[in-house]
Amino acid sequence: MTWELLSIFGTIAFAVSGAIIAMEEDYDILGILVLALATSFGGGMVRNLLIGIPIENIWDQGLLFKLAIIAVIIVFILPQHWIFYWEKPGLFFDAIGLSAFAVQGALAAVEAGYSPIAVVVAATLTGCGGGIIRDILAGRKPLVFRTDIYAIWATLGGTVIALGWLNIEWEKYVLTALLVI
Amino acid sequence: MTWELLSIFGTIAFAVSGAIIAMEEDYDILGILVLALATSFGGGMVRNLLIGIPIENIWDQGLLFKLAIIAVIIVFILPQHWIFYWEKPGLFFDAIGLSAFAVQGALAAVEAGYSPIAVVVAATLTGCGGGIIRDILAGRKPLVFRTDIYAIWATLGGTVIALGWLNIEWEKYVLTALLVI
Amino acid sequence: MTWELLSIFGTIAFAVSGAIIAMEEDYDILGILVLALATSFGGGMVRNLLIGIPIENIWDQGLLFKLAIIAVIIVFILPQHWIFYWEKPGLFFDAIGLSAFAVQGALAAVEAGYSPIAVVVAATLTGCGGGIIRDILAGRKPLVFRTDIYAIWATLGGTVIALGWLNIEWEKYVLTALLVI
Repeated sequence: MTWELLSIFGTIAFAVSGAIIAMEEDYDILGILVLALATSFGGGMVRNLLIGIPIENIWDQGLLFKLAIIAVIIVFILPQHWIFYWEKPGLFFDAIGLSAFAVQGALAAVEAGYSPIAVVVAATLTGCGGGIIRDILAGRKPLVFRTDIYAIWATLGGTVIALGWLNIEWEKYVLTALLVI
Repeated sequence: MTWELLSIFGTIAFAVSGAIIAMEEDYDILGILVLALATSFGGGMVRNLLIGIPIENIWDQGLLFKLAIIAVIIVFILPQHWIFYWEKPGLFFDAIGLSAFAVQGALAAVEAGYSPIAVVVAATLTGCGGGIIRDILAGRKPLVFRTDIYAIWATLGGTVIALGWLNIEWEKYVLTALLVI
Repeated sequence: MTWELLSIFGTIAFAVSGAIIAMEEDYDILGILVLALATSFGGGMVRNLLIGIPIENIWDQGLLFKLAIIAVIIVFILPQHWIFYWEKPGLFFDAIGLSAFAVQGALAAVEAGYSPIAVVVAATLTGCGGGIIRDILAGRKPLVFRTDIYAIWATLGGTVIALGWLNIEWEKYVLTALLVI
């Protein structure tokens, strides 16, 4: 339940970050929607592809899709200067999204019976993949490779959880706390 | 039949646009071929991937492949200044390709029994995906996100048709007309 | 056996080239790892995708993964100026990797029973795909489209071998020789 909630926060945060970057690039509404959805669901798609889950499974996440689209519409309607207020909580939500997705990716790879290396890669790509695709579509260098040192923590955290070395409920909060610091 | 023909026009137009952009970037013959084929078939590949059609099905389109490659060779052989004459009819063919591909993508998603959101995404990506991949491979920002307002019409048109709200034959011409205006 | 060895050389060379480019872009360790692995395994992933081999098969290459990661760690630890010594042998290894991968891609497509066009595309993408993904992730224009005239030879060589027009053992050395010149 709390887990579900983190996923929802993460999806919305990623959709908003995609929409904001698209607006910074003066993209039209099509570009805004594509970047927002690519950021939210790109990581999951790459993960599904790599660990052999049918990629069309992403369509089962109907609720997350609707929330992401609603979030984009709100960002699009809001006056531009509101975006500045987003920056601080945005980083916070982004961190939640990244770690929630990394854990999900790692768990999916563990369930599918992959080796530890594959688990780490799946965690990394599920967490960071959406942001990488977003930056490439915006014609930028992927931000996550340059400044987001917390991406490594999210990845490691995801792997640690997935390999069962720690209790999920407990680690989750520690991880989020670590990220926000 | 008319439908088939639009597909052929679209494939050739996309291949030519990919080849021209590769030449503008001073790419060699390998780059020209890859960009041309990526523009023509990239959208369909992304669509197949997203809606769970085996992606290797694209190889069944042998005729379209041959036509695309022949188009590239003709563009490569023609003297450079001929490219300027292409610009006007090029936009026209591009529009036909984009709308024909959007309708195809939407129909494929409807046939596979997906939700309306998935249908819209499939229409968008089949129509615009090739151009997006082309621009990324050329190191440019995707053009379709910035100026091609008609991309939205193509997407909407594709969805409308696919959801069966309009008669295909009738809408097709209206859509093409709309795009060219 | 010799074949296996070429594959190993190629994987390591590609991993090192990805790591070096990531370091030139001031990427952090996450970026270095992602670029190195994307260069080594990206081409194979795209090939698997296009010719309908389950993409998760790449995880079977456990030895190659480990070697690539060890190569990255060595590059990361070595003092920066050592990188300059890599350039000359690097091109040589790169050429081996490209041609070994092109041949592999072509053989995989032939085994799966595809048409000659598909074989050429599979050879091209397996050989060049990793480098293209690397350059896009680094925010650069794909190098292989611009200067590496030898990429075409690798592709053609791969196709020729795969279609059985030449004896593999014999051609392999000629091809490598050609590339290095």
